[in-house]
Amino acid sequence: MRTVVCKFGGTSVGSLERIENAARRVISLAEKGDKVIVVSSAMAGETDGLIDLARQISEFPNEREMDILLATGEQKAIALFAMTLRKLGYPAVSLCGWQVPIITDEVHTKARIRKIGTQRLKNLLSEGYIPVVAGFQGVTEDWEITTLGRGGSDTTAVALAAAIGADCEIYTDVTGVFTADPRIVPNARKIEKISYEEMLELASLGAKVMQIRSVEFAAKYRVRIHVRSSFEEEEEGTWIVPEDEIMEKVVVRGITVDTKESRITVVRVPDQPGIAAKLFKALGEAHIVVDMIVQNVSHEGYTDMSFTVSRTDAPKAEEIVRKVAKEIGAKEVVRDDRVAKVSIVGLGMRSSYGTAAKMFEVLSKNGINIMAISTSEIKISCLIDEKYAELAVRALHEAFIEDGEEIKVENEG
Amino acid sequence: MRTVVCKFGGTSVGSLERIENAARRVISLAEKGDKVIVVSSAMAGETDGLIDLARQISEFPNEREMDILLATGEQKAIALFAMTLRKLGYPAVSLCGWQVPIITDEVHTKARIRKIGTQRLKNLLSEGYIPVVAGFQGVTEDWEITTLGRGGSDTTAVALAAAIGADCEIYTDVTGVFTADPRIVPNARKIEKISYEEMLELASLGAKVMQIRSVEFAAKYRVRIHVRSSFEEEEEGTWIVPEDEIMEKVVVRGITVDTKESRITVVRVPDQPGIAAKLFKALGEAHIVVDMIVQNVSHEGYTDMSFTVSRTDAPKAEEIVRKVAKEIGAKEVVRDDRVAKVSIVGLGMRSSYGTAAKMFEVLSKNGINIMAISTSEIKISCLIDEKYAELAVRALHEAFIEDGEEIKVENEG
Repeated sequence: MRTVVCKFGGTSVGSLERIENAARRVISLAEKGDKVIVVSSAMAGETDGLIDLARQISEFPNEREMDILLATGEQKAIALFAMTLRKLGYPAVSLCGWQVPIITDEVHTKARIRKIGTQRLKNLLSEGYIPVVAGFQGVTEDWEITTLGRGGSDTTAVALAAAIGADCEIYTDVTGVFTADPRIVPNARKIEKISYEEMLELASLGAKVMQIRSVEFAAKYRVRIHVRSSFEEEEEGTWIVPEDEIMEKVVVRGITVDTKESRITVVRVPDQPGIAAKLFKALGEAHIVVDMIVQNVSHEGYTDMSFTVSRTDAPKAEEIVRKVAKEIGAKEVVRDDRVAKVSIVGLGMRSSYGTAAKMFEVLSKNGINIMAISTSEIKISCLIDEKYAELAVRALHEAFIEDGEEIKVENEG
Repeated sequence: MRTVVCKFGGTSVGSLERIENAARRVISLAEKGDKVIVVSSAMAGETDGLIDLARQISEFPNEREMDILLATGEQKAIALFAMTLRKLGYPAVSLCGWQVPIITDEVHTKARIRKIGTQRLKNLLSEGYIPVVAGFQGVTEDWEITTLGRGGSDTTAVALAAAIGADCEIYTDVTGVFTADPRIVPNARKIEKISYEEMLELASLGAKVMQIRSVEFAAKYRVRIHVRSSFEEEEEGTWIVPEDEIMEKVVVRGITVDTKESRITVVRVPDQPGIAAKLFKALGEAHIVVDMIVQNVSHEGYTDMSFTVSRTDAPKAEEIVRKVAKEIGAKEVVRDDRVAKVSIVGLGMRSSYGTAAKMFEVLSKNGINIMAISTSEIKISCLIDEKYAELAVRALHEAFIEDGEEIKVENEG
C-alpha cells in the first residue's frame, strides 16, 4: 500500500468550494487504496492579509510575533479541510506544526526543518484517519512557533514524505512543469519527468512552480514529487525524480527567461590586481548579490567590467559602484535596466558537444546580441537586450526542443 | 509590587487602533509599577466569521476541528497586541493557550480549565516582559487544542489571576456593572462593589457583563475583579469581590429583566403523585432546562401546572408536553411567549424582612399581575406580562434603589 503526501497550495484551497474539490481529490486517492497525508497552505490571500496587518503596526514587526500571526493562516485552512473531509464521510484529523511535531531551528520567519516526529502520523494512518497537516509552520525545541518562509508548504510536504517514506503530490494551479512559459511559447510542452538538478536550475532561473529549498530537500532524501493541477483530475503532471530514474536525457529540458536583473558597467577601469575585489567587496557588504560577471580583455592597460544584480538592488548597487569607480579612477558607470537573461537547462549537456555554439548561433541568426554569458554543468545563460526576450525564448525552444530530437542523448547508466 | 491580569474583550481589540488604545492602557499600568499579564479575546466579529465558515461546511462541524479553527482568532489578536506593545517600546511576548500551558479537560468547544503552568509566565514577568495570553483556549494533556465556550476569555483571565495570585481587570465596552440596564432606567447607577454571589445572580438573570463560569471561578479562588471601560481611562468601574470586603450590604444591589423565556401551562391536570415527575422527566430527556415552576392548589382533584423554559426551546417543549398531557388526561396545553422575568438581587435580603412583600406591592400598584414567583436567599423573581417589563424594572428601581436607602442593612461582620 502506497503512502502519499498531497500538498495543496493557496489557490487550491482558496474558497470552501475549492477545499471541497481538493478533498474529493484526496478521497479518490484514498478509495484507490492509498494512505494519504494532506499538507495545506493558507487560503489564497490570507497570508498577505496578515502581513499587511502587521506592517500597519510596524515596518519591521517582531519576527517571533510574525510567526505566531502567520501560523493562523494554515491552522484555519487545515481545520476547514478536515471538516470538509469529515462531511464527505472520511475521518480526518488536522494537525498544527507543533502537534506533528515538525521541529525547526530558531530562525523566525525562515526556519529550517531539523526533525519530524512521525509516530502520531503513523498512528493516525494505521487507525484509518487522513491527517491534515499545516504547511509552512513548525516549532522549536522550546515550543516557539516558527515559519519556513515563502513557499514553505512545499518544503513541509517534501519533508513529511521523506520522513514517512512516501511520494509527494504537489497540487497547484498549473498542470505541471513546462519546457518554456506557455504564455510566451505556444508550442511549449509539459515535461513528463525532470531531475532534481534540472528542476533546481529552472527554479533558480525564473520558473515559479516549486520553492527551491523544497527541491533541494527532495534531492537530498530522494523524494519523488508529482507536480499536477488541482483542477484537472485526470491529467498526469510532471514527476521530479532522481536522475537515475530518467531514461531519456535530452540535451535541453527547458528554457527560461528572467527579466528581473539589471546590468551595471564600469567603463575604462585600470587593469590592476585588486580592483575587482574592491568593487565586489563593497557590494557584498551592502548584501547585494551579484549574478553574471564579465570582464573584457585589457586594452592599453584599461578594461570594461560588467555585472548583473537584481533590478530592485540596481539603484543601490549603482550608487555604491559610482563611489568605488571614483576611487579606482574608472571613466564612468552605466546602468542598464532593460536586459533579460535567457537560459537553456538540461542534464544531457554534460555529455553532448556544441550546445553553447548552437545557442549563440540561434541568437545571432535572429539578430540578438549577447552581452554576457554564464554556464554551469547543465545550463547556459545569455544576457540580451530585454526587447528580444520573447523572440529568443521562442527561437531557442524551436531549435532545441521542437527540432532538437537529433541531438538527444541516451542514458549512459 | 502588584501583579494584575488585564483582559480585553473583542470590542476592545476590534481594530488596530483599538489594540493600540488597549496597549496604552497596559503601558500606563506598567509605568505605575504594576506587573501586567494581558489576556485578549479575538477581534470583534472574528469568531462569528469563523463559526459561519464552519457552518457553511456542515451544520454540525466536528468539535475538535472547530476548536482548531476558533483558536486562530485569539492567536491572531495576541500577535498583533504584542507587536503593538513592542512598537510602543515595551517588550511583550504572546502565548497561545498550549504555550502557557493552560491545561483543560477534553470536552471540545466547552472545556474546563484543570491546571495552569505558571513557570513561563513568572519567568517572563521577572525578565520584564509583558506576557500576552490568548483567551478562550487551552490544551488537553494529549496536546489537543480546546476552547472554553462563549465568554471563555473572562475565565482565562480569572484563572490566570488565581494561579498567579493577581488581581483581574476586565476591560469591556461598558463602564461597569449597573443597578439596572441604563437603557431602560435612566437613573441606573454604576455599582462600586458587588459580591460574587450577587454578580452570579445578576449574570444568571440576564446581566451580560461577565461570563457566569468566570465569576464562579473568581468566587472559588477569591480573585478580585475590576470590570471597567477600555475607552474611558480615568473612570473606576465595578469591583467584584468577596462578600467580607463589602462594608455596605444594601438589600437590593441590582434589578434585571429577562425576556427570553416562555411559559407553558398544562390546564386541569389530575392531582396525583407522579404526574409532575412524568412531565419534567420527558423534558429533561430532551435536554430542555426548566426554570420557574408553579402548581396551583388542587381543586376537585385537578390542578394547573405552569413552568418556564427558554424561548428557543419553547416550541419543542410544547410538543413534548402535549404528548404527555394526553397520556395523563390533562385538559389542554397553553404556551405564552410574551412573558418577562423581573428580579431583584441583593445580599441584604438575607437579613431584612418584608422585601418580597414590598416587591409585590410595587408591581401591584402599577397594575402588574404576577404569574409566577421564584426566590433564592438573595433574589426574588416574578414572571409578568412582557408588555409591563420596562415599567416593572423602573418602578422596582425607584422603590428599592433610588428611595431604598431607609432599609439599608449594615455589615454584620
